[in-house]
Amino acid sequence: MPIIEAVRWAPGGGAVRIIDQTALPDQLVERDLTTLDEVCSAITSLSVRGAPAIGVAAAMGLVVSVARQAGRPPSEFRAALDGAAERIRATRPTAANLGWALDRMLARAREADGGNPSAVVEALRAEAGMILEEDRAMCRRIGEHGLPLVPDGSRVLTHCNAGALATSGIGTALAPVYLAVEAGRRVEVFVNETRPLLQGSRLTAWELSRAGIPVTVLTDGMAASLMRAGRIDLCLVGADRIAANHDVANKIGTYAVAVAAGYHRIPFYVAAPASTFDPCTGSGDAIEIEHRPAAEVTHGLGRRTAPEGVAVHNPAFDVTPHELITAIVSDTGLVWVSGRQGAARGGRG
Amino acid sequence: MPIIEAVRWAPGGGAVRIIDQTALPDQLVERDLTTLDEVCSAITSLSVRGAPAIGVAAAMGLVVSVARQAGRPPSEFRAALDGAAERIRATRPTAANLGWALDRMLARAREADGGNPSAVVEALRAEAGMILEEDRAMCRRIGEHGLPLVPDGSRVLTHCNAGALATSGIGTALAPVYLAVEAGRRVEVFVNETRPLLQGSRLTAWELSRAGIPVTVLTDGMAASLMRAGRIDLCLVGADRIAANHDVANKIGTYAVAVAAGYHRIPFYVAAPASTFDPCTGSGDAIEIEHRPAAEVTHGLGRRTAPEGVAVHNPAFDVTPHELITAIVSDTGLVWVSGRQGAARGGRG
Repeated sequence: MPIIEAVRWAPGGGAVRIIDQTALPDQLVERDLTTLDEVCSAITSLSVRGAPAIGVAAAMGLVVSVARQAGRPPSEFRAALDGAAERIRATRPTAANLGWALDRMLARAREADGGNPSAVVEALRAEAGMILEEDRAMCRRIGEHGLPLVPDGSRVLTHCNAGALATSGIGTALAPVYLAVEAGRRVEVFVNETRPLLQGSRLTAWELSRAGIPVTVLTDGMAASLMRAGRIDLCLVGADRIAANHDVANKIGTYAVAVAAGYHRIPFYVAAPASTFDPCTGSGDAIEIEHRPAAEVTHGLGRRTAPEGVAVHNPAFDVTPHELITAIVSDTGLVWVSGRQGAARGGRG
Repeated sequence: MPIIEAVRWAPGGGAVRIIDQTALPDQLVERDLTTLDEVCSAITSLSVRGAPAIGVAAAMGLVVSVARQAGRPPSEFRAALDGAAERIRATRPTAANLGWALDRMLARAREADGGNPSAVVEALRAEAGMILEEDRAMCRRIGEHGLPLVPDGSRVLTHCNAGALATSGIGTALAPVYLAVEAGRRVEVFVNETRPLLQGSRLTAWELSRAGIPVTVLTDGMAASLMRAGRIDLCLVGADRIAANHDVANKIGTYAVAVAAGYHRIPFYVAAPASTFDPCTGSGDAIEIEHRPAAEVTHGLGRRTAPEGVAVHNPAFDVTPHELITAIVSDTGLVWVSGRQGAARGGRG
């Protein structure tokens, strides 16, 4: 099963090779990022997206951006490194993984700073490689912990893209699906197109069909009636932030899926790395929700679809309360959240 | 409050004047239909849509199509009339109102058939005028019966377009909204964009904002979280068919709204003319659901939004079971269906 790799080293290690997600689903375009400008613009333009993938691309991008400065005097190199890190950090100011990855790289540079820029570059290359490998391992562990939730014959509903395209590995929400298929189980995925930006139809449907996994695209209003028809066995979605009480912020539309799953007594699972848990946020009510431009709704696909001047509601995320969540799957294990769906349905197989 | 008229006589009565809904929301284009070809193509191309509006346009269109044949011998006129009716009938084979209106017109023609085509044309003109007036009166009666459901300060969620654009009058689901505003009540409407064909954002938002009623467009996945935030007081949608047990078939996505409304204890009302009640269909399970082309989902807006070859689920309608419906508003009265939301929330006012 060929699972795509959204972020990796180009052969020789002189460039970061990414899949340009702005060209999907029409074309698979890979780009090699070798300069600071290319790295920044790949993140700004959403060619690379998904919190884990952005963190990995930022760390690897910092290395390739500064590698050719290794011949300069140490103080100039250091200034170039700091400048490059700040420019990359500014590309997506609210992406937590981006800042985390860059801070980790700069700390490593300080440790390695013996006056020799070449040694610092090698230390940074090693650190970025570790961040990449850790991200891949994180995905695989989520997949392993989630594997029992996806029995043979499962029909899985997902929303948005929390797949391989959002990480450098096999994804978060889709990781248990990939491993179930790898284990020989028959799994079918239904994916909400996920308006307004259509990550479900553009990205999730693309990566699953490329891996040979049967996938069916729905508009966001269709999932509930499929559940009523008995055609969904479980829901599996990602998370942007998980509060201390296990309320989950995720892509807008997730809450509607959870409400419908609850009504039809279908298990609703959330998959996310341990780093997504935020113990400082008590509950979902405390999570601030970003509101995005109206044009994403009214001109989403290159054409006006609503009358001029009409009001638009366009929050990027919604909050699903813990009572609607069956379990959260992370790289450190499985947390059973609500008892409501203890007797999860088996698959058809 | 200027409420648009989707179908009416052009001055002089020689043409059917319609709003071309394919040009919305960009432009208000009115077209005068004077020939059989124009009438048929207006219906086929969805320039006129909505079951009541189609029925009215078909009846009026039949008159203008045959009026200029009144000088021919009676047998030739009769053949032309039958031929015109059959061509119009074939434009949308599953639209019940279309066949009903044409049958009524042909019956009237038979009654009036005294060998004088001019007299038949006048009888047909009178009959089409009655169908038009009855449709307008039907809308207004739905509005009157539904008026108590929309108190001052109401924040109403609707789905798809069951408004003035779908009838020759003030609509079905939107009729109580228009009359509440006419009565001086403050009413705000939230409308699901209604993928795949976006009737909510293209049509409902357009006609409401044109009438000066505050309207906010949502993507279909957003309504549930607005309900959770306490920002929706009631839901009001149309119906394509109502079974004997009061299960309702309506535009795909309606059921998801009903499930979310039930979870948040928000009243869920359906508005439709008495002709939509189908006593021969016992329950929603017996309603056959039309499945539409995948391209509506994957190429909905002139651009590919899903990878080539991916499976698509695209039913035109879903069924909302009666236990999720608070009441059905028709032109003959209000039917309280489920007791679940007896204590309907009042508006804010």
